Amino acid sequence: MNDRLQAVRNKMQGLNLQGMIIANPVNIKYLSKIDAEGILLLTRKENIFITDGRYMEYVSSVITPFDEIVVDDIKNISRDEYENFFLFCENVGFEEKYVSYSQYKDFIRKYKINNFVEAEDIISTLRTIKDDEEIAHIKRACEVTDECFKMLLEYIKPGLTERQIARKIHEFYLDNADGESFETIVASGENSSKPHAMVTDRIIKNKDIITIDMGCKVKGYCSDMTRTLFVGEPTQEQKNIYNLVLENQQRVLNEMRDGANIKTIVKGVESTFNLHNHTLIHSLGHGVGLEIHESPIISLKNDSLLKENMVVTDEPGIYLQGDFGVRIEDTVLITKKGAISLTESEKECIIL
Amino acid sequence: MNDRLQAVRNKMQGLNLQGMIIANPVNIKYLSKIDAEGILLLTRKENIFITDGRYMEYVSSVITPFDEIVVDDIKNISRDEYENFFLFCENVGFEEKYVSYSQYKDFIRKYKINNFVEAEDIISTLRTIKDDEEIAHIKRACEVTDECFKMLLEYIKPGLTERQIARKIHEFYLDNADGESFETIVASGENSSKPHAMVTDRIIKNKDIITIDMGCKVKGYCSDMTRTLFVGEPTQEQKNIYNLVLENQQRVLNEMRDGANIKTIVKGVESTFNLHNHTLIHSLGHGVGLEIHESPIISLKNDSLLKENMVVTDEPGIYLQGDFGVRIEDTVLITKKGAISLTESEKECIIL
Repeated sequence: MNDRLQAVRNKMQGLNLQGMIIANPVNIKYLSKIDAEGILLLTRKENIFITDGRYMEYVSSVITPFDEIVVDDIKNISRDEYENFFLFCENVGFEEKYVSYSQYKDFIRKYKINNFVEAEDIISTLRTIKDDEEIAHIKRACEVTDECFKMLLEYIKPGLTERQIARKIHEFYLDNADGESFETIVASGENSSKPHAMVTDRIIKNKDIITIDMGCKVKGYCSDMTRTLFVGEPTQEQKNIYNLVLENQQRVLNEMRDGANIKTIVKGVESTFNLHNHTLIHSLGHGVGLEIHESPIISLKNDSLLKENMVVTDEPGIYLQGDFGVRIEDTVLITKKGAISLTESEKECIIL
Repeated sequence: MNDRLQAVRNKMQGLNLQGMIIANPVNIKYLSKIDAEGILLLTRKENIFITDGRYMEYVSSVITPFDEIVVDDIKNISRDEYENFFLFCENVGFEEKYVSYSQYKDFIRKYKINNFVEAEDIISTLRTIKDDEEIAHIKRACEVTDECFKMLLEYIKPGLTERQIARKIHEFYLDNADGESFETIVASGENSSKPHAMVTDRIIKNKDIITIDMGCKVKGYCSDMTRTLFVGEPTQEQKNIYNLVLENQQRVLNEMRDGANIKTIVKGVESTFNLHNHTLIHSLGHGVGLEIHESPIISLKNDSLLKENMVVTDEPGIYLQGDFGVRIEDTVLITKKGAISLTESEKECIIL
């Protein structure tokens, strides 16, 4: 059996969980490399992927005997067979944050499940720790993002619109990676005060501040980076806020390491911001991998520890409503000795 | 109150439903034009959108007094206030196909809901009937798709890869619309036998069959069209299958109208395919609107009637595993007098 499926089975055994239904396509891809609609069942004895006529040919071409995954066409499975999959299982796990209420009820009925247990954490926790291949893909995605940023420093000029800049990034990622990992944010002038601004046709002008939040995908893995730029000399207020954000971003980078408590790190930033009469209005970061946002969340709510080979973002931001905002973000690899920023673009105040 | 919110409230009244939690961002956008993270609550007396600091500024700029939507910042809502939203409601509706099991439990706890009722159909049914503005957007998205196809007929040549063709479509949609409505399929040669093939680096060669499934977005609304092309003269078998698919696609177009039974239409295609020893392995179509796949599904499972101003696809396909496949698809507007194909690209066998 492949290592990841084996790891899930080991955790299931530790929890005395006798079966599992995996419905989230990202988890299915993580565990089996299969990128198709269907359901992965871990029964007592077998791993079974149920799909339909549209994907049978493709799925058979992706899996290897080593995976130990049986592929079934949904149209050949009778009602009785569904009930037999988990016949002697006292309990069956499912992904409670992915499965809709309607699916949940369907699963219980179709598979005749007695004890349906929330077990999503088994997989999402496993996914937080990246292996060498995953780290290599994320590193490459971060490199392409640095290259893209370099290109932007030459490209961005007053007169361009936010949309033109976003389009340039989009094309760069199509040419040099497998496209964007999320919809690029280019927020200029007063738009920068919205942390999740949508790209507009606003024209970049002299004295503008521009926040660019961007990332790409390489072999399915994401990068995520934000830089805030100035077109012409910033005001003193802008400089002060930029420096406050940068100091905190850097401090977090210094504090992140295997064994560091997430809540403590976030509290440090929040307290410093509050001291200066600012608020940390969004989480300080999030895990990055097959999805742009995944576990662990770096927020006050998370009292757990960072671990070696987690990849997370470090992205404090301050936003003065209707005026301007500053956010600085890196994608960061956690090691025993500290954190390594995988995005390496210049962070000192850049004036175009 | 805006018409759509009023329509939901009218339906709720008819069902004696006293409150509703709307969590699906597409439904929120449909009902309020708000395109942001948050939750829309329809309480007895008010429509309330709860969001967070990242979106407060944006949301206030989108809604009008006419919408009658109160905006709340999540950080200002106390535990008691959550419990008060639906205090005198005997029942509260939710979107059972969108809300995860975990959210479902959270909602019940947080809002102290006694009777949480599956009510997604209220909104998804409303969304099936398009108003003039929605139809205009879909029409425009279909026009751009026809223009894109015209461009492709000049562009596609042996020697290009599937990926190059898909990229050309991608760029065309970025230049002429708001981008793709889904990931374009360009499936050539034996790849065309997979109905949901992923784009590869396969090089187009003489005697190839190519299936292209593509669509774009205009003001949030989607188009969806598939054409199957031949590079050089098709084989007799390919011609026969092409004609069989085309005849059925055309017949469905003739049968679709206000009041027509969906199941009956699908049965007609299935029987004809079976007579020729082929199978209809996917649904015959689906609704198109803010989402590329929405209600109603055009499949045997759906025993309901088509209605005026629905927009659906008509997309029969036949796939010979490992060999080749043919699919022909239009986006279609249902009227009292019949169906109007909004995508108008040539359907007679095209030989490049």
